[in-house]
Amino acid sequence: MQRWKATVSYDGTQFAGYQVQPEARTVQGEIEKNLAKMHKGNSVRISASGRTDAGVHAIGQVFHFDSPLAIAPERWQKALNALLPADIRILEVEAVPLDFHARFSAVEKEYHYRLMTNGEPDVFRRNYASHFPYPLDHGAIQEAMGIFMGTHDFTSFSSARSEVEDKVRTITMFELETAGDELIFKVRGSGFLYNMVRIMAGTLLDAGQGKIQPEEIRSMLAEKDRSAAGKTAPPHGLYLYRVTY
Amino acid sequence: MQRWKATVSYDGTQFAGYQVQPEARTVQGEIEKNLAKMHKGNSVRISASGRTDAGVHAIGQVFHFDSPLAIAPERWQKALNALLPADIRILEVEAVPLDFHARFSAVEKEYHYRLMTNGEPDVFRRNYASHFPYPLDHGAIQEAMGIFMGTHDFTSFSSARSEVEDKVRTITMFELETAGDELIFKVRGSGFLYNMVRIMAGTLLDAGQGKIQPEEIRSMLAEKDRSAAGKTAPPHGLYLYRVTY
Repeated sequence: MQRWKATVSYDGTQFAGYQVQPEARTVQGEIEKNLAKMHKGNSVRISASGRTDAGVHAIGQVFHFDSPLAIAPERWQKALNALLPADIRILEVEAVPLDFHARFSAVEKEYHYRLMTNGEPDVFRRNYASHFPYPLDHGAIQEAMGIFMGTHDFTSFSSARSEVEDKVRTITMFELETAGDELIFKVRGSGFLYNMVRIMAGTLLDAGQGKIQPEEIRSMLAEKDRSAAGKTAPPHGLYLYRVTY
Repeated sequence: MQRWKATVSYDGTQFAGYQVQPEARTVQGEIEKNLAKMHKGNSVRISASGRTDAGVHAIGQVFHFDSPLAIAPERWQKALNALLPADIRILEVEAVPLDFHARFSAVEKEYHYRLMTNGEPDVFRRNYASHFPYPLDHGAIQEAMGIFMGTHDFTSFSSARSEVEDKVRTITMFELETAGDELIFKVRGSGFLYNMVRIMAGTLLDAGQGKIQPEEIRSMLAEKDRSAAGKTAPPHGLYLYRVTY
């Protein structure tokens, strides 16, 4: 038995999310279905670094799986891509030790949140960036990003549905990039709670519009209550960019 | 009665093409359906600069229509965009004289053809650029573009189904651009026959791969026979970029 680490990109538009669900088209479901085809119908479970919601994209999601098949890494990639639908592409497959775990071995994750700021949303990016055609104070957004940096209890910035007990996480990078008519929030950290990036993005937009002062994020963090923070930004602007091991 | 000129962008992925067809989702069909809603159910015909096929995109298609409604140009744009699906966006509406015709008044058209050249197709561009992961000689492509420049009978480079009699057209610009992992063919001319840009693109790829010498395009043109030219490149790389009046 060999353990394999696979890096995968997917367009989240036509998926009900990453995690397998009965009767729904999911990323995990598609990959497991095609891995089973390669294993004579025997089911093969995959474990990802974490889930992504419906509409959320991945540039570098990572999962692992175990297989008795003796196949070279490039062959795994080619064989899977030949079976998978066009909105999922395996970018790399590598052999890893049996104690590697896509979720528990992850050291850092990076997410990007893309915003189109022009008046009419570009038809070609309608599923790939969130449309926000209102004036934004970039300095205020960057100040707010600075307050998120470091180690905090992110209870206020996670879905109330989150079942994780320890809500302390560390943000190691938070950057604002402008690219043409787009704004991109880039955030890296030790890990992220359910909806955390989208709630931080929604709160950064409040700061950018002057609805809140960046300093208020300190009290939002202190309150440890979801209702203290801003709205959850829409899923289709969000990308799981990279998982570091 | 006022004549209006509208500039429209659409993502061709989910359309059976521009031109209205019974039982199919078309760009013209969607626009006319929503114009009728604005005219108390009375049908309003639109006339475009030309058709685009299923899967072909438009960044700046132009159509005209006549209406008795006294509405300001920006209101037309907002009202139509509020009704239209997200894969069609009206970019501009302006009042024009009654003798303006989106097709017959056009002076030049510009098309772009996008190619992704990397090994695995990017999931986010699978419907927006044609995948061509083979080595290409850019110099040979540019030489071939030079041969298309000027006035020629393009019978060999149009679909045999084309019913236009006069197949003489003038190409005024043909450029190769590289943008990241993409190659973009940009072509401008007095007008284009059915499938002409896609057949020229397919022939440029033959030249880039050394399957033909650029000089052979002269004899292809002289033959006036569709079978003399290269393959028709796939629709999803093609964009109607601009129509000039």
